[in-house]
Amino acid sequence: MTEKLRIGVAGVGTVGASLVRILQQKHNELAERCGRAIEVVAVCARDKNKDRGCDLSNVEWFDSPDALAASDLIDVYVELIGGEDGVALSSVSIALDAGKHVVTANKALLAKHGVALATKAEATGCILNFEAAVAGGIPIIKTMREALTSNHVTRIYGILNGTCNYMLTRMENEGISFEDCLADAQRLGYAEADPTFDIEGNDTAHKLAILTSIAFGTLISTDNIYMEGITKITNADIEAAGELGYRIKLLGVAQRTASGIEQRVHPTMVKKGTPIAEISGVTNAVAIEADIVGQLVLSGPGAGGDATASAVSGDLCDIAKSGAGHQHAPALGKPVAQLEPYVRAKMRAHEGCYFIRLSVHDHSGAFASIANRMAQENISLQSIVQRKSEKDGDDESQQIILITHETNETSIKSALANIDGDGHLSAAAQMIRIES
Amino acid sequence: MTEKLRIGVAGVGTVGASLVRILQQKHNELAERCGRAIEVVAVCARDKNKDRGCDLSNVEWFDSPDALAASDLIDVYVELIGGEDGVALSSVSIALDAGKHVVTANKALLAKHGVALATKAEATGCILNFEAAVAGGIPIIKTMREALTSNHVTRIYGILNGTCNYMLTRMENEGISFEDCLADAQRLGYAEADPTFDIEGNDTAHKLAILTSIAFGTLISTDNIYMEGITKITNADIEAAGELGYRIKLLGVAQRTASGIEQRVHPTMVKKGTPIAEISGVTNAVAIEADIVGQLVLSGPGAGGDATASAVSGDLCDIAKSGAGHQHAPALGKPVAQLEPYVRAKMRAHEGCYFIRLSVHDHSGAFASIANRMAQENISLQSIVQRKSEKDGDDESQQIILITHETNETSIKSALANIDGDGHLSAAAQMIRIES
Repeated sequence: MTEKLRIGVAGVGTVGASLVRILQQKHNELAERCGRAIEVVAVCARDKNKDRGCDLSNVEWFDSPDALAASDLIDVYVELIGGEDGVALSSVSIALDAGKHVVTANKALLAKHGVALATKAEATGCILNFEAAVAGGIPIIKTMREALTSNHVTRIYGILNGTCNYMLTRMENEGISFEDCLADAQRLGYAEADPTFDIEGNDTAHKLAILTSIAFGTLISTDNIYMEGITKITNADIEAAGELGYRIKLLGVAQRTASGIEQRVHPTMVKKGTPIAEISGVTNAVAIEADIVGQLVLSGPGAGGDATASAVSGDLCDIAKSGAGHQHAPALGKPVAQLEPYVRAKMRAHEGCYFIRLSVHDHSGAFASIANRMAQENISLQSIVQRKSEKDGDDESQQIILITHETNETSIKSALANIDGDGHLSAAAQMIRIES
Repeated sequence: MTEKLRIGVAGVGTVGASLVRILQQKHNELAERCGRAIEVVAVCARDKNKDRGCDLSNVEWFDSPDALAASDLIDVYVELIGGEDGVALSSVSIALDAGKHVVTANKALLAKHGVALATKAEATGCILNFEAAVAGGIPIIKTMREALTSNHVTRIYGILNGTCNYMLTRMENEGISFEDCLADAQRLGYAEADPTFDIEGNDTAHKLAILTSIAFGTLISTDNIYMEGITKITNADIEAAGELGYRIKLLGVAQRTASGIEQRVHPTMVKKGTPIAEISGVTNAVAIEADIVGQLVLSGPGAGGDATASAVSGDLCDIAKSGAGHQHAPALGKPVAQLEPYVRAKMRAHEGCYFIRLSVHDHSGAFASIANRMAQENISLQSIVQRKSEKDGDDESQQIILITHETNETSIKSALANIDGDGHLSAAAQMIRIES
């Protein structure tokens, strides 16, 4: 058996403590399976006396992640600190420069600096693994980077944020409002005190940017993502979607089009009965469409200490099995020099079907006027539902729900602007893209 | 860049031709991604003049798989011949003994000889990859063997046979009989002329045996699988299941219990809205439950030339990336010497909920008698549906549909035998296990 693989862990919170426990409890079996022992020999964490539910009595303690990353005591540096810059960036850079393999769960770091870090890893022949950074315990990076090596991906999309999916699921099942649901999610620990990053789509965007790079062989581009959160989704939307056979999910979608690659994060209507539509609660799911294999869908826990630690330890096992520097496994699937620039497909060129919900003053002629505005933009409709809405203050208003045939973003935006200008609407129009 | 990886392909049918095309069309990109070129340099196939839609003009032709497997021209032997013994077995054995890596899509071969072949691979330090052997294009072997290395699997189950799922889906959607559906599936090429192997569950059992070994670290045991096909499933079952919120699927299930590991293949009721229940048509899906990660579900195409070739080429890419002999990747997840004997959990000890459909002569007292027989075995019921059935010849009969709370196989079998003995049944009782 080869020499043991010596691990240094920076950040021993929920994930780190779970990782240490796993590697200790399964020490002998992992040695059998990987051909060598995997041992945590050093950690960096703030409070040495805190009870973390794992045995850290025989490890070296470091005060500085940078010092741990540079230490000759370790072969692999595991970064579980978080943050897109700061010590996460400096310590990972130091480790790679020093020829140490790196495993990180840090999506923000990779979305911003992934290409630079992959370059460093190539320069020193190290492995940079980050399965836990996207969709937690789901082996989506491994699937894309290894299993689908010979496939050209055409579209990849999924539920990448458990908080949003938890909220949308509860809003649907219990009919509670967005605000009440958010408060409850915060109380239960499913949402942060400042939930912006989750509910506005930034977290999904970070993960999507990483997936896009691996899926399409392009440089990571986080700034070029169309982003729309779930804050404007109401129970009326969810109900109307449900009646028409759809569910609303916050999806990250990356798709190859004639004019470039679309990267978009927005609330999306998906048909009930499809694998993505049936994912409820905090579970994540990713669908991959590729030229050879067709469609694959992977679902599982997107967060949580154990699920994340499972992915991190899978990455460590791969390093243990790989032998010293003999495996050619580019961090982003291709060597950085071969990655193509990311060419953004403009959102206004996006094509698809749309769900439109309009609250209309109950005037005669309103519907005809709306229909005319749609026709002007050559938008044809596949279903129309009109019904009395709940009384909206003093004004009795109608709900008109439209599902369009395939059209494009420019036409829809223009039609909605014109409808708004005609003065029939009693509230802002709601528009939700449909993913088929 | 390292020297090119030289591939020999035995069997150039649909899968083989698709594989050759992929490796040719994506030659340069695969070389970039894998760090070396991957080239088919030799094939073994019957008819040299047949048009296979791929260019075989520059490859060596062999008449015998054994000779190809032994040839110094190749680094990797790809076995796409099929069959559990014969030349598939001899050629793979020869290749491994000669120190060549092997990729095979042959589930029957692995189910029967997997342990012996893994032993040979270990002896010569070769990689034995077989992603395509189970669930076609779904990376289930990679997920189990690599991503979940640190997990203990508690249960793995799935839809592993596309033919059966296609038939059950059509029977549900269109209300056609098993016989008509089978005839149609044969006409459309989804079922073989002799469909026994698919519809009686043998195909699922082979795949399950391989998954069980990797999931639980046990020796492969194909003989110890409880097997029940879909031939007795009627439209009445599917309808009754639907009304109660279930769908019927042919599942392969492997599960750790107190008395050993259950391996079973049988029609199963799964709750609508769960990922497995929503898999329709020829698609396959596998759910894994493990101690750390929780539940993962993977779905995708389980068969077809391209999907299978996608998995085979993924295996080849992994070999190309691995460097020569430096990767420690035991074929069955653990070195053969560490695999534990398979201890079979007896089917009569199986615990779960059951769906029972009884056709009962319309006599007063029949229901009370049935209820008593269930109570005798301490079986409690979570739902009871009684309704007039279609007229069954001259006899007006009732359908009684029961869903039990958790009980065990011995109790159910005993209750059903007693009910049958009481003489109230107008047809054999139907019993379908529920998987939750």
